[in-house]
Amino acid sequence: MKTALIQQKYYNSKSETIKQTVLKIEEASKSDVELIVLQELHQTHYFCQNENVDVFDLANSWEDDILFWADIAKKNKIVLVTSLFEKRAAGLYHNTAVVFEKDGSIAGKYRKMHIPDDPGFYEKFYFTPGDIGFEPIQTSVGKLGVLICWDQWYPEAARLMALKGAEILIYPTAIGWFESDTEDEKQRQLDAWIAVQRGHAVANGIPVLTVNRVGFEKDDSGVLSGTQFWGNSFVFGAQGEYLAHANHQNEEILYSEIDLNQSENVRRWWPFLRDRRIECYNGITKRYID
Amino acid sequence: MKTALIQQKYYNSKSETIKQTVLKIEEASKSDVELIVLQELHQTHYFCQNENVDVFDLANSWEDDILFWADIAKKNKIVLVTSLFEKRAAGLYHNTAVVFEKDGSIAGKYRKMHIPDDPGFYEKFYFTPGDIGFEPIQTSVGKLGVLICWDQWYPEAARLMALKGAEILIYPTAIGWFESDTEDEKQRQLDAWIAVQRGHAVANGIPVLTVNRVGFEKDDSGVLSGTQFWGNSFVFGAQGEYLAHANHQNEEILYSEIDLNQSENVRRWWPFLRDRRIECYNGITKRYID
Repeated sequence: MKTALIQQKYYNSKSETIKQTVLKIEEASKSDVELIVLQELHQTHYFCQNENVDVFDLANSWEDDILFWADIAKKNKIVLVTSLFEKRAAGLYHNTAVVFEKDGSIAGKYRKMHIPDDPGFYEKFYFTPGDIGFEPIQTSVGKLGVLICWDQWYPEAARLMALKGAEILIYPTAIGWFESDTEDEKQRQLDAWIAVQRGHAVANGIPVLTVNRVGFEKDDSGVLSGTQFWGNSFVFGAQGEYLAHANHQNEEILYSEIDLNQSENVRRWWPFLRDRRIECYNGITKRYID
Repeated sequence: MKTALIQQKYYNSKSETIKQTVLKIEEASKSDVELIVLQELHQTHYFCQNENVDVFDLANSWEDDILFWADIAKKNKIVLVTSLFEKRAAGLYHNTAVVFEKDGSIAGKYRKMHIPDDPGFYEKFYFTPGDIGFEPIQTSVGKLGVLICWDQWYPEAARLMALKGAEILIYPTAIGWFESDTEDEKQRQLDAWIAVQRGHAVANGIPVLTVNRVGFEKDDSGVLSGTQFWGNSFVFGAQGEYLAHANHQNEEILYSEIDLNQSENVRRWWPFLRDRRIECYNGITKRYID
């Protein structure tokens, strides 16, 4: 199965950014791609760099956004993983991935479960933690374990998706560097981000597809200078092998060929699921064991 | 804190192998090393390449082995992580790491929890799965999350150790290649093995120390040709950064400097433990969720 990750920058308006995304989807669709994944909150800038109640207006279009991307999936005959700002009720918002089938129907949605909060990434202000759990989404191209950004640091999320039959892990993401960090620190952060997700591929014997934005986005509150999103979208196979890796500063359509049968082979050689000591894992549901 | 991993080959007899190990411990101890980790089943060859009841004789020395390594720890004033073949009762054996304090006392032990079984690694024949769980061992150099080889593929094991306060993850290991595999496949296996453990360091914000044997060991049953143990012992810091990495074919004392305060810093920047969705992790204790 051919897949494409669309690594993009923000074009200073929602309409222009969406226009560019659609052009890239059309381009990717011409080459037999069946699954396209967009980055986290791909319609807009990454608006969590500061806390501003007016930003919730961006979620007012939630229902129209769904109709729009459903139409794009249908026109291009692709399974499409989007990342939208969901307004569920007044004062109740989620960071939600909506997955569309090739016919434009909704295959399913995932509400981001792990919500970060650190300087420049004030997500706990904007996003209510997801309440529909870790449920893979069945599509015509396979059962997709869609998770979002901060989820990628949690082996529990990846494992639960795998235990529920996910055949691929997918992470729309928005992560970057602060200029104030040293080059060494930047490299360690990037390496850590790749390493932990590569680990999920290996531990679960399934491919991992992650797409991240690029470009510098200013913190318009003026408190921080802004974030340089580090791109580096990647695809690992079921054995944790690199299948594709994008650059760190430019837009890129990152293509890869995924063989879902490989998981069957990899898991026969290394049958980790067989030997799990499930009777001894209860402590995982504790905050800390002290 | 300075640490040393002793990556070794088998010298065709237990006595000669132990002699070489002791020489290396003495060498390492001269340079202010406080913690030394030996590879899995370091006293002998990796005897699980076939199933042979006579091999259980190797465990008859279990109690003497403990006395011997206690004395080595005391003489060299080091915390020593050993990996021994435990005879617990007739027909009841474990793959057990015994950790000694600088004064030769036993700090604690860990019985390998996840037991592999695949061609050339018939461990389910030899080792009863551990029954003392994932308990870190308190020592004068820190709380050690000692796990063994196959455990390294399980994020659950690493997480449970971290949740119980382990400050370092330690994996004595015996893993290698079959000659019949292609070079590409060998590289994928090695990379996967490193990647999954690097992921544990990142996900838990603690260093990982892994020591593996080197050298070719023949399968004396003649069924398989044998295993080329791939060395590559390594140390990752709390952010998943490489601190040390050994070669793939020669003996090596792999030194590293571990800063246990780094975990405090790393976990402040990236507070993964804060955001775990523990109320949604119950499925981890299922074999499969179907």
